[in-house]
Amino acid sequence: MITSLANQKVKYVAQLRKKPALRRQEGVFLTEGVKMFLEAPEKMLEEVYVSEDVWKNGGMHSALWEKAYGKLERCGFETVSGEAFAKMSDTQSPQGILCIVRQQTYRLEDMIGKRERPFFLILENLQDPGNLGTILRTGEGAGVSGIIMDSDTVDIYNPKTVRATMGSIYRVPFLYTGHLHGAIRQMQGQGIKVYAAHLEGEQCYDECDYCRPTAFLIGNEGNGLTRETAGLADAYIRIPMAGQLESLNAAVAAALLLYAVEGQRRAALR
Amino acid sequence: MITSLANQKVKYVAQLRKKPALRRQEGVFLTEGVKMFLEAPEKMLEEVYVSEDVWKNGGMHSALWEKAYGKLERCGFETVSGEAFAKMSDTQSPQGILCIVRQQTYRLEDMIGKRERPFFLILENLQDPGNLGTILRTGEGAGVSGIIMDSDTVDIYNPKTVRATMGSIYRVPFLYTGHLHGAIRQMQGQGIKVYAAHLEGEQCYDECDYCRPTAFLIGNEGNGLTRETAGLADAYIRIPMAGQLESLNAAVAAALLLYAVEGQRRAALR
Repeated sequence: MITSLANQKVKYVAQLRKKPALRRQEGVFLTEGVKMFLEAPEKMLEEVYVSEDVWKNGGMHSALWEKAYGKLERCGFETVSGEAFAKMSDTQSPQGILCIVRQQTYRLEDMIGKRERPFFLILENLQDPGNLGTILRTGEGAGVSGIIMDSDTVDIYNPKTVRATMGSIYRVPFLYTGHLHGAIRQMQGQGIKVYAAHLEGEQCYDECDYCRPTAFLIGNEGNGLTRETAGLADAYIRIPMAGQLESLNAAVAAALLLYAVEGQRRAALR
Repeated sequence: MITSLANQKVKYVAQLRKKPALRRQEGVFLTEGVKMFLEAPEKMLEEVYVSEDVWKNGGMHSALWEKAYGKLERCGFETVSGEAFAKMSDTQSPQGILCIVRQQTYRLEDMIGKRERPFFLILENLQDPGNLGTILRTGEGAGVSGIIMDSDTVDIYNPKTVRATMGSIYRVPFLYTGHLHGAIRQMQGQGIKVYAAHLEGEQCYDECDYCRPTAFLIGNEGNGLTRETAGLADAYIRIPMAGQLESLNAAVAAALLLYAVEGQRRAALR
């Protein structure tokens, strides 16, 4: 059992938690909690740490921990003293299990080619970690082909983002690009129609044909899309708003667009 | 100018920030930031505090502060030293203006009677302050008649919730009730059809007629609706999910339901 706060592994995990650059360099990220452990594909799991406190105090008796037992045996794990675990953990009330998980890499070509009618979300300078995680989660639910982000968008491996994905981070393809405009043009070249969610949109978001290959551009929470990026869109769409609102939350706007596609494609099958 | 950390007003605001019971007793809540000040109806404003730091350092030169100037003159305000303001404030980088705002009270009868086809959200044991604020914001955008919450739902005057409403807290009618089941029956008695968002729903959420008076029941983030409350619903509906997701974020689910109503009613006008 690891007990020392000066243990190299404890220090390494604490560093991974704080330093996006180290996560990038090592090609890994952290997940916490038994659900995130259960959902992690085994081939992505690098290290698993279990808190001795939880282990002793019967965490293992909950239904989720029951499920975790076999997987822990298979994958192997190390126990860590409560104090050392707290140093590794991001949460105020740690759930007693923490994993180092290998990052996946996805290619735009693969995402586009994988399905007959691909369907993307393109994010520019999104800043809220919780919003990004929620967007990934909703994207999985709506059956998105992938999420494309510019390099100003918040780190998807931020612990808050990872938590908010509720496991979708293992399953939804995504990529960061320093050349967002190039990626947009590449999609358009493949016949994907690119819509910008924009306050000046003429068409309502639910009046377009999303049965064809589709992508949505969503901008920064406060400032929306840059003019240059919005300028590349094939069409502007807007979400109608009653009252005196200036905008909707970015994850909410994304959800409405994602499920507008889901709804149309489901209706087409009926 | 208020400079002392021991000043009664500074202490009072700090207490209001921390103590839901005190907010309830006094019938007020706090808002921060120039946007929340600008959106506050003047009749609801009780006290306005402006940080001397911001005042001196040209906060007044931003476009929003320019707009705030006239309202500040009209409503009156007190300046507070930076240190004292930090004690009053909830945020790590305070925006330099903080208001004590009078709570509004709404009656269910009024909400139901105000419109021909009322449309409600009913929340049971919602726990995340950000989710609740986002739901209010989205509710305003979709034109909801009101939000009904049981007494286990997180305090709507929680500073995080107030911030996430982006001003909707001033405009969307809401109420807490210790008798959620009575409120549901009262709505049903007035011809409102009550749908439960439920994983076991048979109908998809976008296949019902929301042009008639409508209410949606939404439950706790982790556990959903209690069986008793779900049992009162006229129908169960579900939001389809691809992938391996167990559920959507509560604010996202609420947004999809709210905008399903908005979309149908807008389409009916075309």
